[in-house]
Amino acid sequence: MAKTEPRTLSGFMELLPNDQILFNQMMDTIEETYQRFGFLPLDTPIIELSEVLLAKAGGETEKQIYRFTRGDTDLSLRFDLTVPLAKYVAKNYGNLSFPFRRYQIGKVYRGERTQKGRYREFYQCDIDIIGDGELDLINDAELPSVIYMIFTKLGFSNFTIKINNRKILNGLFESIGQKDNSVEILRIIDKIDKIGKEAVKEELEKINVGKEQIDKIISFIEISGSNDEKIEKLKALKIENETFNKGLEELDYVVKNMRLFGIPEANIMIDLTIARGLDYYTGTVYETFLNDYRELGSVCSGGRYENLAENYTDKKLPGVGISIGLTRLFYKLQELNLIKAEKKSISDVLIIPMVEDLSVPIKVANTLRSNGVNTEVYLNNKKLKAKFKYADKLEIPYVIVIGEDEISKQVVKLKDMKTGEEKEIPLNEIDSLKF
Amino acid sequence: MAKTEPRTLSGFMELLPNDQILFNQMMDTIEETYQRFGFLPLDTPIIELSEVLLAKAGGETEKQIYRFTRGDTDLSLRFDLTVPLAKYVAKNYGNLSFPFRRYQIGKVYRGERTQKGRYREFYQCDIDIIGDGELDLINDAELPSVIYMIFTKLGFSNFTIKINNRKILNGLFESIGQKDNSVEILRIIDKIDKIGKEAVKEELEKINVGKEQIDKIISFIEISGSNDEKIEKLKALKIENETFNKGLEELDYVVKNMRLFGIPEANIMIDLTIARGLDYYTGTVYETFLNDYRELGSVCSGGRYENLAENYTDKKLPGVGISIGLTRLFYKLQELNLIKAEKKSISDVLIIPMVEDLSVPIKVANTLRSNGVNTEVYLNNKKLKAKFKYADKLEIPYVIVIGEDEISKQVVKLKDMKTGEEKEIPLNEIDSLKF
Repeated sequence: MAKTEPRTLSGFMELLPNDQILFNQMMDTIEETYQRFGFLPLDTPIIELSEVLLAKAGGETEKQIYRFTRGDTDLSLRFDLTVPLAKYVAKNYGNLSFPFRRYQIGKVYRGERTQKGRYREFYQCDIDIIGDGELDLINDAELPSVIYMIFTKLGFSNFTIKINNRKILNGLFESIGQKDNSVEILRIIDKIDKIGKEAVKEELEKINVGKEQIDKIISFIEISGSNDEKIEKLKALKIENETFNKGLEELDYVVKNMRLFGIPEANIMIDLTIARGLDYYTGTVYETFLNDYRELGSVCSGGRYENLAENYTDKKLPGVGISIGLTRLFYKLQELNLIKAEKKSISDVLIIPMVEDLSVPIKVANTLRSNGVNTEVYLNNKKLKAKFKYADKLEIPYVIVIGEDEISKQVVKLKDMKTGEEKEIPLNEIDSLKF
Repeated sequence: MAKTEPRTLSGFMELLPNDQILFNQMMDTIEETYQRFGFLPLDTPIIELSEVLLAKAGGETEKQIYRFTRGDTDLSLRFDLTVPLAKYVAKNYGNLSFPFRRYQIGKVYRGERTQKGRYREFYQCDIDIIGDGELDLINDAELPSVIYMIFTKLGFSNFTIKINNRKILNGLFESIGQKDNSVEILRIIDKIDKIGKEAVKEELEKINVGKEQIDKIISFIEISGSNDEKIEKLKALKIENETFNKGLEELDYVVKNMRLFGIPEANIMIDLTIARGLDYYTGTVYETFLNDYRELGSVCSGGRYENLAENYTDKKLPGVGISIGLTRLFYKLQELNLIKAEKKSISDVLIIPMVEDLSVPIKVANTLRSNGVNTEVYLNNKKLKAKFKYADKLEIPYVIVIGEDEISKQVVKLKDMKTGEEKEIPLNEIDSLKF
């Protein structure tokens, strides 16, 4: 028979079991933490009506959509979890309790140019808090504490949650009459680390920003010091712009409360250059960096938005949210060998029967399983060596061997695969065996 | 601004949070049980090359596929988890350890005609054990014990795992020279409960099955009694056909070993009419019925196949597997109000601050969370009543109220939402509070 070559699309992650176990542990850590803060689970379809999904989209996003027709229905695969959330909240408004705190962990699709570490199918892990009409600013301080718990649990300590407020940037540009130039200005100042201050000044001149205004911009982005010092220096700028001062007040409040939520000062940094897209976010914005691995870029980002679902409803639904791009994060951490496994195997123990009659091995397995021990019985007729090799490859930490000898002595032989230590356990003590 | 109506495609399940919690608990129970038996997790892409995914498909299946082109690539969404498994095992053959025991829980897509309780996007929860060249028959006895544990954990006791062996049916039809008629014969005998024995006989005559052959078929399907009696009666038929007798021997062995795996006799039933599709399964077949809710049909089915991946590789890869169609099962159980919730809310406790300064409420939350308690703080400025209503709607079992009074007394007020009982807990005892 002619064979089809078994292959997987490029840009689609498909892991071997040992890696899948690590991936799932990361996902579980994220999910557990989201639940620890009381976020509710949500699962929306991967396919939506294009009309609904693309109510807002345009430009780059729209080009990347997996869009197709079936019958005469125009369908698209979701490209993020925020648009489905907006649809969901607008659709189910009357049945939800606000503030609506939801998490969603699921696959999204973007037909990007494939390259190493970039995926077309990838997991996003999102939380959002949606208010009905209004949402207190304190919520903006809680989300970073979720980020802090996740990355701490994943085994990191040297990471920084960067925070800014879009109103500060908007207000600054307003105050110097450069509101319409803000996209360009942000693009230029973003390069300061690479090209240096003088080159930034030159580029700003080229787009007709006046000298005095350039000085204001430079003195703004040069603000340094501790978080408290930055706040003080921002106040000292005495910029008379309502938006700017509202943003500054919000940032001050959010940073103070982040501390209250237990985030150490060392993990918080006000970074006045963070903007995160220009349309969507309207207040607080976050990015998170693993300081020893800056090449990963931001591993968790998000912010505050004025109105989640304006394409679907007249209800005003402000919110704040964060997102982790898990597939790419996993790929990068795996490449750097940075994933700390709680458990490398699913099974706690492999039972190796070396007898014809499987009744004892199977009864031992039944007992262990009913006590919550993940137990596999090796159920193929192979040599002892092959069975041990199997345990080795699957990194199962313990093996129980049951042969004729053991059965006549009414024991099992328990082997610790790490230390090589072996001991005999009487059959009637299996029930109290812990792993 | 013109609004787009927020709507979800028909045939796509989208639950409210309280239902989503129940759905996820069912999924977790299934996943935990799969892990309890040492099955390894797998996650394959939802999109595959059509050439790969449809290497074997045809007829009805192919019509239901979500298939589309992107650029010049012909893509399809997976319609089950078995074909992706076949591809995966063929592709990664050299990197897997056999027997390869994997579970996969994921969404699959079939463009069926939409009707109540039928979904176009639905979860399948599969386990399969794949052998390299051969796979011992004892594996066929282990899978029903997984089914038994799952449905027991889901709160059912009156359910039956029906078992048969395709070789018995094939051998019977061979022995009476009706091999080519087997599809038709099975279709007819399947109706015996509805139309009665005489009508079945008449229909069999119409397709030119001889009188003597009809008698053999009828005496076969009329075999009744306990499982052991059925085996004895099958033996007593003395059908001289190698396939039949091989099937009988296998069935006998599998049923005996199912008992060894701890499945009570009351939950096992040999049913000689179960066939489950005609091409794929070659030996043991299973179906599972909740006896009080027969209208659900089989809630977990599967069987033994000779060769998983013959479209992709020359390697012989026999296997045995089962599948639960979770989305439809959930829908039906929910409709019948049969889902037993372990926990109806994500949060164990809601903290309700009735003070301006949130430092005490947030510190209490930090302490509880670091002790593993899922804790939400109500972070919007509302009246006490609205906050309690929120706890009620989310079915959060405990509420902690912190007002000026409590702070001056250095206590919190803990309320059991079920009993209404309230008590004061000193702030310095929060750390030892259990939920």
